[in-house]
Amino acid sequence: MLVAVAAVAGVVVCMAQASGHTDGEAAPLFGVKIPPGYRDWRLISVAHEAGNLNDFRAILGNDTAINAYREEKLPFPDGTTIVRLAWSYVPSEENNKVFGRAQSFVAGPPINIQLMVKDSKKYASTGGWGFAQFKDGKPGDEALHKTCFPCHEPAKASDFVFTHYSR
Amino acid sequence: MLVAVAAVAGVVVCMAQASGHTDGEAAPLFGVKIPPGYRDWRLISVAHEAGNLNDFRAILGNDTAINAYREEKLPFPDGTTIVRLAWSYVPSEENNKVFGRAQSFVAGPPINIQLMVKDSKKYASTGGWGFAQFKDGKPGDEALHKTCFPCHEPAKASDFVFTHYSR
Repeated sequence: MLVAVAAVAGVVVCMAQASGHTDGEAAPLFGVKIPPGYRDWRLISVAHEAGNLNDFRAILGNDTAINAYREEKLPFPDGTTIVRLAWSYVPSEENNKVFGRAQSFVAGPPINIQLMVKDSKKYASTGGWGFAQFKDGKPGDEALHKTCFPCHEPAKASDFVFTHYSR
Repeated sequence: MLVAVAAVAGVVVCMAQASGHTDGEAAPLFGVKIPPGYRDWRLISVAHEAGNLNDFRAILGNDTAINAYREEKLPFPDGTTIVRLAWSYVPSEENNKVFGRAQSFVAGPPINIQLMVKDSKKYASTGGWGFAQFKDGKPGDEALHKTCFPCHEPAKASDFVFTHYSR
């Protein structure tokens, strides 16, 4: 979705948005909001979950996150925010024509975004992390957000973060 | 690879590098070099090529590229640079343990990077694009670079660029 924010003197200012708006609704339990400008953040890595999820993922980080990854600094410092964007995992007909076989998969429509925000005091009971999921700018419900930390607990050795930085 | 560039007064400045160094060796035919700081560029989208390639891709763009994509501006203006990073496509044992089944794929070791640089005059005979591939900072040979434009020609309707922007 491309949203025209303002049209002044013939100049159209556009703001790109993934599956989230930054209009301020906070996720339950952790109170995490969608950070402005997250789609401009730098890339940590990519992933694909097959099975029922069948999604394509890009994991981006704010400056604090990127610096910590590159310096291999654990635990992540307070202020770290990591955002995971997910799109449908779809075959690319146009790419397959060029390759001459069905081998190309690309990102389709956005599914949702997930966030991890480090605040070791505020979120002391969940490893120092606040979690959130948004779909079309709307946060998931409380029951959903109760599943975040238990799922991330097995990654305790990497400060509850699954994604490794790709150079 | 994490390269310590300088260690001054206890401050280690690190520069992250993918499968390329920015030490200036130019690719044949087009003379394209690896642009400094490309790993910090913003994300255009992601892709997976199965089959013999079996890679995971992230496509990043410089500011000119990102602006053109977001404004849906074709052809891309001169100065556009798009970089495609590729890593091995590998299963994640640690993620699969959490999900309870083999469904998770992540980026493994870097394979190579490819570049497209728009200069409509300099590269008039190849759709206005200069192409390059680097592996561990070394450009591929001339024969390889002769294959770039013929492969991209079917994407003429999108100015010879395959990747669509993911919001």
